[in-house]
Amino acid sequence: MRLVTIEDIRGAAGRIAADVVRTPLLPAGWGDPDRPLWLKPENLQPIGAFKIRGAFNALGLLDPHVRARGVVAYSSGNHAQAVAFAAARYGVAAHIVMPEETPAVKVDATRAHGAQVVLCAAGQRERVASELVERTGGVLIPPFDHPAIIAGQGTAGLEIAEDLPSVATVLIPISGGGLASGIGTAIRALCPQAKVFGVEPELAADTAEALASGHLVDWPVAQRNRTIADGLRSTPSALTFAHLQHVLDGVITVSEDEIRTAVGELAHSAHLVAEPSGAVALAGYRRGTLPDGPAVVIVSGGNIEPALLGHILAG
Amino acid sequence: MRLVTIEDIRGAAGRIAADVVRTPLLPAGWGDPDRPLWLKPENLQPIGAFKIRGAFNALGLLDPHVRARGVVAYSSGNHAQAVAFAAARYGVAAHIVMPEETPAVKVDATRAHGAQVVLCAAGQRERVASELVERTGGVLIPPFDHPAIIAGQGTAGLEIAEDLPSVATVLIPISGGGLASGIGTAIRALCPQAKVFGVEPELAADTAEALASGHLVDWPVAQRNRTIADGLRSTPSALTFAHLQHVLDGVITVSEDEIRTAVGELAHSAHLVAEPSGAVALAGYRRGTLPDGPAVVIVSGGNIEPALLGHILAG
Repeated sequence: MRLVTIEDIRGAAGRIAADVVRTPLLPAGWGDPDRPLWLKPENLQPIGAFKIRGAFNALGLLDPHVRARGVVAYSSGNHAQAVAFAAARYGVAAHIVMPEETPAVKVDATRAHGAQVVLCAAGQRERVASELVERTGGVLIPPFDHPAIIAGQGTAGLEIAEDLPSVATVLIPISGGGLASGIGTAIRALCPQAKVFGVEPELAADTAEALASGHLVDWPVAQRNRTIADGLRSTPSALTFAHLQHVLDGVITVSEDEIRTAVGELAHSAHLVAEPSGAVALAGYRRGTLPDGPAVVIVSGGNIEPALLGHILAG
Repeated sequence: MRLVTIEDIRGAAGRIAADVVRTPLLPAGWGDPDRPLWLKPENLQPIGAFKIRGAFNALGLLDPHVRARGVVAYSSGNHAQAVAFAAARYGVAAHIVMPEETPAVKVDATRAHGAQVVLCAAGQRERVASELVERTGGVLIPPFDHPAIIAGQGTAGLEIAEDLPSVATVLIPISGGGLASGIGTAIRALCPQAKVFGVEPELAADTAEALASGHLVDWPVAQRNRTIADGLRSTPSALTFAHLQHVLDGVITVSEDEIRTAVGELAHSAHLVAEPSGAVALAGYRRGTLPDGPAVVIVSGGNIEPALLGHILAG
């Protein structure tokens, strides 16, 4: 299996530069003095999440004649909006397959970018997406299981290496593993001294178990779906798992309470609105046993229901 | 009266670069299509507000032998934390005079940066600060009435001109007027096509009245203190007023409801936590009659009580 390289990531960086925010590293004075805390606020991307990096790289890599036929994706979350947004920028059609139970606010946000949303029963989305690909001739843009997506997400790691070459630790949320695969590849290549940790909710810690056992494990969907971190309920593919085995120094698991606390801490101390999935890496920073030196926490997304954030802030 | 120049601002930019976050311009797709909205998130600065720019420039300009005697400031708000933070970075003592009724959370945050906080009765803070200057030999760092402060705040304008030279409108909150004086000076020099608007709460619209009448006016403190935007209750000095007369195309005033709505919109749509004072410029963007073309809104600070933000988000 060919793994994504730093050259793939450099190529992606040039490809997406005009459409993606080059997020700063924010020094957070309220971290542990021995492990100065820096935040990478990917929640400030146009659709509120890092997913836009991979989507723009995947669309940008398509032959223009192929891309003109449009794109198809299945997602109930940030990948849906990312593909819809990138397709609109490229002026091509997007069909997004979403489960019927997706909150209306997410369906509306995806439609607002001009995408056609196709609702389907849970468990049917891959089949419906395949039919759409066949019918429209569009290209399927998967959420993480593709080298172009991994390389696109890796551009965040390239930026970390540019801004803080002395980084000692990088903490990255893990779901399907595209973000951790990409950032991990960049950090391994450019900052070989740094430790790279994935962070997962205890309730969806399938990757921690998989890395410990050396092979992918299958946690039931109903079990993974218990976590408040609704963006972290996927499980790696063979492709992302191969990357994670290569680039991670370990996986830290965190409790639901620790995730909620991290959401509140980011709002109060960093003035950032993070969704639970976007706050787990901070929870991992608090929980983990990390080396001394600068630590970078990826704040991967900000699409939280205002009522939930209000509830967390009210204590 | 000598006004601050673009050269002063360029000098400040070099002086503060190592200590201040170079905030990105964030494209906000949810603005008016004819006036694409960009946000300048100064709430992401280390102490959660733009005030750090002026504080670092003022301390940086002091002769090292003078600076070693320490600094003094009076403020109940973000300037207190900014001076305390900058003094700690320079390794010099800071005495901060705060009114007795200052919320404990702000007193604690100032002390956390290593400053000595001196509490005093309301209306006594300038006298107490003068006594501290006399007793300690420290240098008074005023919140806005000083060319070094204005030039420091102006570095945000320099960054806007670098990132978006085609900007058509810049909207800036006004209190003492240091931020609008500095940014306005930079924009006038580098983007002469752009309109520069101050934004004030209707309940503290003394600057709108002053600019209309051509001279400073004195709104009673009790009247200005009614606005929820607790960082916008000051009034310009002769120095900042002279700048504002020179650089502003107008002042937009906004209601308390519009300010609250803007706080919610920044949290929900931009994933930024803004204090009411930090959200008024967005309210002005919604309220004002602006030219077509790109508009930059300064999100000046993020130090809001979590309970208030929670209340606004709960609707």
